[in-house]
Amino acid sequence: MSRPLRIAVAGLGTVGAGTLRLLSGNADAIAARSGRALQVTAVCARDRSRDRGLDLSPYQWFDDPVEMAVRAEADVVVELIGGSEGPAKETLEAALGNARPVVTANKALLAHHGTALAAQAEAAGCTIGYEAAVAGGIPIIKGLREGLAGNRISRVYGILNGTCNYILTQMSGGGDSGGNLQPRQEFDAVLAEAQRLGYAEADPSFDIDGVDTAHKLAILTALAFGCEVDFDAVYVEGIRSVSALDVAYADELGYCIKLLGVAQQVNGAVEQRVHPCMVRKGQPIASVDGVFNGVVADGDFVDTTMYEGRGAGAGPTASAVVADLIDIARGTMPPVFGIAAKDLRRLPTVPMEQHRCAYYLRLLVLDKPGVIADVAAVLRDADISMESMLQRGRAEGEGEPVPVIIMTHETSEAAMQRALTQIAGLEATLEPPRLIRIVDF
Amino acid sequence: MSRPLRIAVAGLGTVGAGTLRLLSGNADAIAARSGRALQVTAVCARDRSRDRGLDLSPYQWFDDPVEMAVRAEADVVVELIGGSEGPAKETLEAALGNARPVVTANKALLAHHGTALAAQAEAAGCTIGYEAAVAGGIPIIKGLREGLAGNRISRVYGILNGTCNYILTQMSGGGDSGGNLQPRQEFDAVLAEAQRLGYAEADPSFDIDGVDTAHKLAILTALAFGCEVDFDAVYVEGIRSVSALDVAYADELGYCIKLLGVAQQVNGAVEQRVHPCMVRKGQPIASVDGVFNGVVADGDFVDTTMYEGRGAGAGPTASAVVADLIDIARGTMPPVFGIAAKDLRRLPTVPMEQHRCAYYLRLLVLDKPGVIADVAAVLRDADISMESMLQRGRAEGEGEPVPVIIMTHETSEAAMQRALTQIAGLEATLEPPRLIRIVDF
Repeated sequence: MSRPLRIAVAGLGTVGAGTLRLLSGNADAIAARSGRALQVTAVCARDRSRDRGLDLSPYQWFDDPVEMAVRAEADVVVELIGGSEGPAKETLEAALGNARPVVTANKALLAHHGTALAAQAEAAGCTIGYEAAVAGGIPIIKGLREGLAGNRISRVYGILNGTCNYILTQMSGGGDSGGNLQPRQEFDAVLAEAQRLGYAEADPSFDIDGVDTAHKLAILTALAFGCEVDFDAVYVEGIRSVSALDVAYADELGYCIKLLGVAQQVNGAVEQRVHPCMVRKGQPIASVDGVFNGVVADGDFVDTTMYEGRGAGAGPTASAVVADLIDIARGTMPPVFGIAAKDLRRLPTVPMEQHRCAYYLRLLVLDKPGVIADVAAVLRDADISMESMLQRGRAEGEGEPVPVIIMTHETSEAAMQRALTQIAGLEATLEPPRLIRIVDF
Repeated sequence: MSRPLRIAVAGLGTVGAGTLRLLSGNADAIAARSGRALQVTAVCARDRSRDRGLDLSPYQWFDDPVEMAVRAEADVVVELIGGSEGPAKETLEAALGNARPVVTANKALLAHHGTALAAQAEAAGCTIGYEAAVAGGIPIIKGLREGLAGNRISRVYGILNGTCNYILTQMSGGGDSGGNLQPRQEFDAVLAEAQRLGYAEADPSFDIDGVDTAHKLAILTALAFGCEVDFDAVYVEGIRSVSALDVAYADELGYCIKLLGVAQQVNGAVEQRVHPCMVRKGQPIASVDGVFNGVVADGDFVDTTMYEGRGAGAGPTASAVVADLIDIARGTMPPVFGIAAKDLRRLPTVPMEQHRCAYYLRLLVLDKPGVIADVAAVLRDADISMESMLQRGRAEGEGEPVPVIIMTHETSEAAMQRALTQIAGLEATLEPPRLIRIVDF
């Protein structure tokens, strides 16, 4: 058996501590699969004295991750600091600058600087492992980069944020559906509960506003289509405006609401978008509930494949980190995004205005004669065809607010936005209309 | 870019032809991911003149696959002949004997000779790629061997045969369930339809008797647990005895019926079994319908992960073959079953008699007083606790046949088999009782 692979770990939060536990707990099995031992030699964190339930004495301690990346007696550097700039980025650059391969769980960093970092890794003859950056323990990076490598991928999409999926699942009654409009929990109440359970951060905006999903999607896009990472091209919309009423209507109409990241190739251009979606029940992705993540990839030969598992947490994320370490221990260092960094294409972006789909609209209007006719006229003038309209129940009295649900046939985002502006301007409209896009996979 | 990887393909049936099509159709993308071109140099099949819609003139032709494995100008040999003995086995042995790595879709061969072939490959310093042997296009071999490599896998199970899953899905009304007992198609009618559609072979026994699933399960077991391939230790029961009535009752009771292959570690021993299972609706594996396959792997750190996709067909299988070829082109040659062949353990088998689960029983009895009491007494004497009993409707007249459904609490297979023998011997029992095991994942 070869000499051990020496590992320096920067960041000893939940995932860092989980990684140390996995490496020691399963050391024999990992060594058997790696053909050599995996040995942590150095660690670095903000606070040395914090009790992590780990004995750090066997490891060389560094206060500065960048110094560790350069000076530690290590063959590979694991970056679990997080953040798209600052110490995390400097640590990767320092490690790659010293021809040391890196393993990271940092989606923000790769979403913003992935192309440049991939080029740096390649120039240094090493690689960046980032299985842990997308969908936690699900081996989707390896699946796309290697498992489906023979295919042209036309589309990749998924539930990439467990916090959002937990909230939406809870709002829908935890997957329990009877076809009737049931009282369901509102977003704010479920978010508070998720925070109490540790499924949502104290400041949840990164998750619930879709930014985290967009980071992960930008990485999947580059890998699936062999193009540069282009986070700025991702259309991003979070789940704050999804209401219990929307969830109830979706259920009644045969859908559930999921926050999806969707990337697809359209005539040589790339569409990347993150927004709440109405997904028809019975679709495999519709049954991915709670904190689980799910990713679907469509290849020209393999057809549709789906991957499901826990998208976060110490254990699943450590599992992904260690999978990358085992690859490196074996000498497996594929190009970061599957092809040579210089060959990553800069593909044009499909602007969101050109996106076409069917829409779910929820209006709050005064319940009086002629309102629906006015709305219908706006849609007709925008060339948008209505599929159905639902005005469940009546207001207490004429002139009171009542929700109206409209499902449209496929139209363009541009036409829909124009129509919504006009509907918002109608006298009877009491709040900005809400829209949820209907996906048809 | 390095020189091309030269490939010799033995067997030009559906999968062989699909592999040639994929290699030529996506040649540029494949070369980008491989870092070199993948070039077919030689082919071999039983009949040279058969029209496959392919121009074979660029390739050296061989009549004998074994000769091709040795003499072709090739770096790797692809075996798509099939069968556990004869030419397929000889082709692999000849290729490995010449230190040529092999890619194969042959589950029967690996199920019967996997351990020895892995040792031969290792001694020759090369590998056997067999992503195509299990679950078609789903990259489950790579997922288990590399993606989850940090984990101790406690259980792996799945729907591994698309023919059986298609038949069972059709028998259940194609996934459409209303909670009522609907008239459903019987097994024979659905099988005939599957044969007409090309989803089942003219001789379907390999599929519907569970042998194909058992082959695949034996491979997954070795990979997941780091043990020798032990096909003979697999308990195998097919789907011939599943009736439309069972499917209807399962639906009513909140289950669907799936043919699963299940491998799990129990106190250092291994349990491998293939049989129809009652799976609770809402479980991810329950929604894998039609010709799709699904595999679930439980790891100690990653928790539960699931993989779904097409388990057969030219495109998906070719996708898996080419994924292995790209790995080999890159120089990635992990040990066949994830760890060194000499380290594959010979683990004890849990005998089926010791398996414990809850059971669904269907009896056909004469409708007369005291019958249920007799059955209940047999179960009581065997220490089997009944959870529910269902005698839907009455026979036309007393003494006529009527089906009785019994759900039991967990008990041992041995106790259940003893009880069934006694029930079969009761005077009122008109046919051997049928059982379906209830899985609780």
